[in-house]
Amino acid sequence: MNEQRRYYFDWAATAPPPPVQKQFDTALLFGNPSSKHTEGRAARESLEESRRRCAAALDTDTNTTYFTSGATESNTIALFSILLRQADGIKQTLLTTTAEHPSVLQNCATLKQLGIPVYYMDTATYGGADPEILEKNLHKNTDTTMLAMMYVNNENGAVSNLNKLVETARRKSAKKLHIHIDMAQALGKLPLSLRNMDIDSASFSAHKIGGPRGIGILYLRKPLQTLCKGGGQEGGQRPGTENTAGAFYFAETLETLPVQKNYNDAVIKMAHLINALRSIDRCTINPEIRETEDPRFSPYILRASFKNAPGEVMQRLLDDEGFAVSTGSACSSAVKKHPSPKTAADSEEHDFTSIRISIGRDTQIDEIEQLIEAIHRVLRQI
Amino acid sequence: MNEQRRYYFDWAATAPPPPVQKQFDTALLFGNPSSKHTEGRAARESLEESRRRCAAALDTDTNTTYFTSGATESNTIALFSILLRQADGIKQTLLTTTAEHPSVLQNCATLKQLGIPVYYMDTATYGGADPEILEKNLHKNTDTTMLAMMYVNNENGAVSNLNKLVETARRKSAKKLHIHIDMAQALGKLPLSLRNMDIDSASFSAHKIGGPRGIGILYLRKPLQTLCKGGGQEGGQRPGTENTAGAFYFAETLETLPVQKNYNDAVIKMAHLINALRSIDRCTINPEIRETEDPRFSPYILRASFKNAPGEVMQRLLDDEGFAVSTGSACSSAVKKHPSPKTAADSEEHDFTSIRISIGRDTQIDEIEQLIEAIHRVLRQI
Repeated sequence: MNEQRRYYFDWAATAPPPPVQKQFDTALLFGNPSSKHTEGRAARESLEESRRRCAAALDTDTNTTYFTSGATESNTIALFSILLRQADGIKQTLLTTTAEHPSVLQNCATLKQLGIPVYYMDTATYGGADPEILEKNLHKNTDTTMLAMMYVNNENGAVSNLNKLVETARRKSAKKLHIHIDMAQALGKLPLSLRNMDIDSASFSAHKIGGPRGIGILYLRKPLQTLCKGGGQEGGQRPGTENTAGAFYFAETLETLPVQKNYNDAVIKMAHLINALRSIDRCTINPEIRETEDPRFSPYILRASFKNAPGEVMQRLLDDEGFAVSTGSACSSAVKKHPSPKTAADSEEHDFTSIRISIGRDTQIDEIEQLIEAIHRVLRQI
Repeated sequence: MNEQRRYYFDWAATAPPPPVQKQFDTALLFGNPSSKHTEGRAARESLEESRRRCAAALDTDTNTTYFTSGATESNTIALFSILLRQADGIKQTLLTTTAEHPSVLQNCATLKQLGIPVYYMDTATYGGADPEILEKNLHKNTDTTMLAMMYVNNENGAVSNLNKLVETARRKSAKKLHIHIDMAQALGKLPLSLRNMDIDSASFSAHKIGGPRGIGILYLRKPLQTLCKGGGQEGGQRPGTENTAGAFYFAETLETLPVQKNYNDAVIKMAHLINALRSIDRCTINPEIRETEDPRFSPYILRASFKNAPGEVMQRLLDDEGFAVSTGSACSSAVKKHPSPKTAADSEEHDFTSIRISIGRDTQIDEIEQLIEAIHRVLRQI
């Protein structure tokens, strides 16, 4: 029997479920929302109520809010819509950054293989996308028709200045530009108002905030010509019988999340963590320019490296001590032989020696202190 | 308050959940299976155990069993893999039937739009795919590289003679042929042994047997070069953080299903239904050649039409009486302006006037008798 107390510091990979107020009544709502009978209509009403609640939490309209199986599929739908626009004779070109999640980078590589030009931008020194680099790229690559970027970097927490980036993109783009933002690490972490963002699409996953697996959202300002089709569900944007229970718990989780309060709390917790790590001689915060309270970073994600202590070893020894941290994103760890996407903030050294410590709504200051103690213990072994 | 007793006869659209023996422990198994720490490894072990159970139920190996979000996505992954093989310089051509589910037909249309030749075969008179027609098509279209067909027709229950079809395809195909079978309506309804089928891929959805929404399986004899990529999950065949709870309940539902017993029971129930319907003057079984006990049809799905009583009206009035039947597949009903795919068994008239009655494990003979009574009452109104 494992009686060890566990300390979870990998909230960016996935979050434990929060208590929810209401339960989905599977026996009552098992119907297929596309069926016209009473059971189908009840399921449809439940699904649309979930959509209404999610849309409200994201400050957007229901007719922009499409349920998918998760952020990966949402990214995929947005990116591959390029293929059909190209087939319609409208030449497509993609601009992205080198720091994106594999579900953007890997699909960009596939699009390139299929003949779509893809341009890659470096990020700013701190790790976020850089408005100046973006401007230069749009100036040089006047054929760019889609821009795909993440809001919050999943590995180092860098928050891109979306307002500035989007403003620059709209001003400098020669073509009508589709702006797609991967918001997987922003959902429930940063206050979001899609209504006030001049973007065309965005991706979200429920499980990153403790909602169920297998449900996500694709925000689409206007419907796309999507590659994968089927039974016409989700307004033709995402086929497959709708995950009504998933949508319900996504709404339930999202709606009850006190985003601003949790953010404020996270800033305090993260400052505590950063200060404590700075007191450890062998520790370097990555990137080093990150300040204790730094609005350029998500207060939920921190990357740190330890002199002569490879990240993998740190992760393993901390796990033995009861602490779950990661060496990078869980998704990257599954991409065999593909190292984590690099940001300008990463040196080769950091990539191999760093760990990611990510916190969440339940993280306590006391747990952070226990983690620091454990890091001290572990470092004495290496 | 709606105190009406409900009778569910739309099991082909989706099935109510059966009682399960065990519950998924979300608090213990919330981890991301790609994470290397204790929480991640526990989630991974759970996922692999679910995979083992599902693979065993389908009589195949775990390394052929990939979790997806459902049969629609499974079909999509198989079909769109063509694009990358074509990009590799291996010319691709698709052969399918006119009776497929929208998640095959609509994606075939997209592939055509992207330059892949697609050939469409008629079905046999009874509604299943026809080995002779297949032979003629393969003889004519020697460039065919993929054959995509359904096992059980979702609208009229026609069961294709897979053994004969696959044997014909292997014998007559000029090229190395990928055979993909949509098994959404076969899962848990017909005894399946993937090990004994000479096919390359197959699609399954959990919810069709009362499992959760948002989880399915793609059987792949060998891994594909898949179009949509991401974090490398599911051996690179299906990206996105794995739906561990969904996989667990899929396994739980699938493993405990007494397929052969339920099939034998369904044959008796369906014979009762067909005989009772034949006693109604205005009723025609579609196709008319369907016998009371007919191995060419799934005993779970029946199509019938009623003279001077359009299917939509029948469906609505039966719903008012407490009976859920459908006019076609739920998926087709969501595809606006695309009528249900036709089979050779359908006349235009049937398409507009028929209803689909589909039964399941819980359907009782008494309920069938109540349905027949209700049909009599409804017909008196039209």
